Amino acid sequence: MTTNPLFGAMEGGGTKFVCAVGSGPDEIVEEVRFPTTTPGETLDRAIAYFQKYDLSAIGLASFGPVDLNTASPTYGSITTTPKLGWAGTEVVAPFKSAFDIPMAFELDVNAAAFGEYSWVPENRRPETLVYITIGTGIGAGIIINGKLIHGLTHPEAGHMRLPHNLKADPFPGNCPFHGDCFEGMANGPALARRWGMPAETLPDNHPAWELEATYIAYAVVNVILTLSPQRIVLGGGVMEHQSLFPSIRGKVRDLLNGYIASSVFSGMMEEYIVPPALGKRSGVLGAMAMAKKLVEKG
Amino acid sequence: MTTNPLFGAMEGGGTKFVCAVGSGPDEIVEEVRFPTTTPGETLDRAIAYFQKYDLSAIGLASFGPVDLNTASPTYGSITTTPKLGWAGTEVVAPFKSAFDIPMAFELDVNAAAFGEYSWVPENRRPETLVYITIGTGIGAGIIINGKLIHGLTHPEAGHMRLPHNLKADPFPGNCPFHGDCFEGMANGPALARRWGMPAETLPDNHPAWELEATYIAYAVVNVILTLSPQRIVLGGGVMEHQSLFPSIRGKVRDLLNGYIASSVFSGMMEEYIVPPALGKRSGVLGAMAMAKKLVEKG
Repeated sequence: MTTNPLFGAMEGGGTKFVCAVGSGPDEIVEEVRFPTTTPGETLDRAIAYFQKYDLSAIGLASFGPVDLNTASPTYGSITTTPKLGWAGTEVVAPFKSAFDIPMAFELDVNAAAFGEYSWVPENRRPETLVYITIGTGIGAGIIINGKLIHGLTHPEAGHMRLPHNLKADPFPGNCPFHGDCFEGMANGPALARRWGMPAETLPDNHPAWELEATYIAYAVVNVILTLSPQRIVLGGGVMEHQSLFPSIRGKVRDLLNGYIASSVFSGMMEEYIVPPALGKRSGVLGAMAMAKKLVEKG
Repeated sequence: MTTNPLFGAMEGGGTKFVCAVGSGPDEIVEEVRFPTTTPGETLDRAIAYFQKYDLSAIGLASFGPVDLNTASPTYGSITTTPKLGWAGTEVVAPFKSAFDIPMAFELDVNAAAFGEYSWVPENRRPETLVYITIGTGIGAGIIINGKLIHGLTHPEAGHMRLPHNLKADPFPGNCPFHGDCFEGMANGPALARRWGMPAETLPDNHPAWELEATYIAYAVVNVILTLSPQRIVLGGGVMEHQSLFPSIRGKVRDLLNGYIASSVFSGMMEEYIVPPALGKRSGVLGAMAMAKKLVEKG
C-alpha cells in the first residue's frame, strides 16, 4: 500500500486507450487497456475506471490534433482527426463533469515527451528534450527549459520538408496534405507501401532500413539545428526496429559534419539519440507526471 | 535629458561594431559605429566608448559561434569563427575587467530576436517568436515563453536540410560544412554565385527571387512545424529585397496546405511573417533589452 497521493493517467490513442492509477512508474496501483470505440463509450469507460479511486489529480493525453489553448472555447477537444466519429470530441469536458480535482490535458506525443523528461533522476534530466514518435503517424513533443512548447497550436514536426532524392527513391510519399514530407516518406504505412510488405516483416538486411534511417536522420538533424536539444528520444512502432538507432546516429554525425561544437557529437551518441527510457509507457506515465505536477504546484 | 537608468549595448559584427547608450529605442543618448579590426583594438574601442557614461548594465551581442554556457571555462568567447584573428576571442572578459556592473552576453541573432520580442507593447508581444537573418550567413534566434533558447549550444537553423530539386536548380550549394543546406542554397553569396552577379544588382523580375523565396519558405515551414511560433521575423541583407515577403507568405501557405488549424494562416500573414520592427537595429536594441532585463530582475 502506498501513502503517496494517487494520480489518474490516461493515454487515448486511435486504436486503444491506456489508463493507469498510481504515484509514479514504480508505484502503479492498476493499469488497464481497452479498445477505442465511440467517443462516448470510450471516455465513459475511462471515467468509470478512475471513479474507483480517490485521486488527487488526473492527467489526460489524447491523439490529435487537439486544442491546447486554455482561452479557446474548444479547449480540451480533438479538432480535425480523420478518425470516424472523433472529430470535435470534447475530451476534458466529461472528466470535468465527473471529477472535481485538478486536471491536465496534452497531446499524446507531448505527454510522452513530458514522461521522458519527468521520470528520470534530477541530475540526469535535460532541460531541453525532444521526443519523436515514428509509427502510423510521426509527431514530436518538445520540452524547453522544463516546459512543453505549444506556441500557436502545438508542434507538427512530423510534417517538415526534407531532401528527397527522387532518383534514389521514386516513392512520392503518402501524406494527404504534403505528399513527401517526413511523415509521408517515413511513417509505417509509407514503408509498407514503398516495399510492398508490412514494416514489421521487412528483414534486417533489407535496404528499406537504410533509407528509413536517412529520412529520420535528416529530421533529427533539422531538430538539432533548430532547437539544440540535450536529448532526443525516438519512439513509436517503427523505432522498435532497434538497428535503426546506430544507423541514425552515424548519419546524424555525418550530416552535421562537425559543425556543432559539443562533445555530444564526438562519441557514439548512445546517450543523446535514445529509445524511450519508459518503453511504450512514456505517454501514460507522462500523463501521470502532468497530474503530479498540478498537485506539486499547489 | 533622461531620468531612466542608462544601458550600454553592443552588437559586434564581422564587418562593423555598433554601440549605443540609452534607456530604450526612443531614448537613445548616443550611437556609434566603427569597423571590426583586431579583437584587442575593436573591443578596447567599445569599452572606451561605454566608459564615458554612468551605466546600470551592459548587453553584449556578438557574431558567432559563441560559447553561451555560463558553466563553461570559455563562456563569453567567440569559438570557431573563420574570421582571421577572432577565433577564441574572449568578448565578455575585457568588459568584466573594465566595469563592475551586470552584463549579459548573447549571439547576435539571439539579441536581434530578443529586441524584436522586447520592444513591442506588451499586449502585442508574442510569447514564441523566431528571428531569422538571411544575409552573408543565415541564422535564427528563438524565443519560447519569453526566453531565448540555448540548449546544448545555440540554434543553428541556418544549416537545416531542405528539399533541393537538382533538375530545377543544379547549384550545388556553397556551405563548406554541408553543401546544399539552407545557408548553402540561400545566403547572399549563394545568390551571387548561382546567378553570376551580386544579389543587390539582381532585378526584381529575375527568377533568382522566386527560387530564393522557395528555399526561405521551406525553412519557414519547417520552423513553423517544429516550434509553432506566434511570429516570424525575417531580417538581414537579402530580406531588404521587400518583394520576397509576399512571395514567401504565399509559398508558406501553399506548403502547409491547410494543415495547421490556426486563423493565422487564413489571411495574408502580413502580421505573422514580418520584417524587423526595429529595422537594422534589432541586434543593438536587443542587447539594450538584455541589459535592461538584468537590472529589472534585481
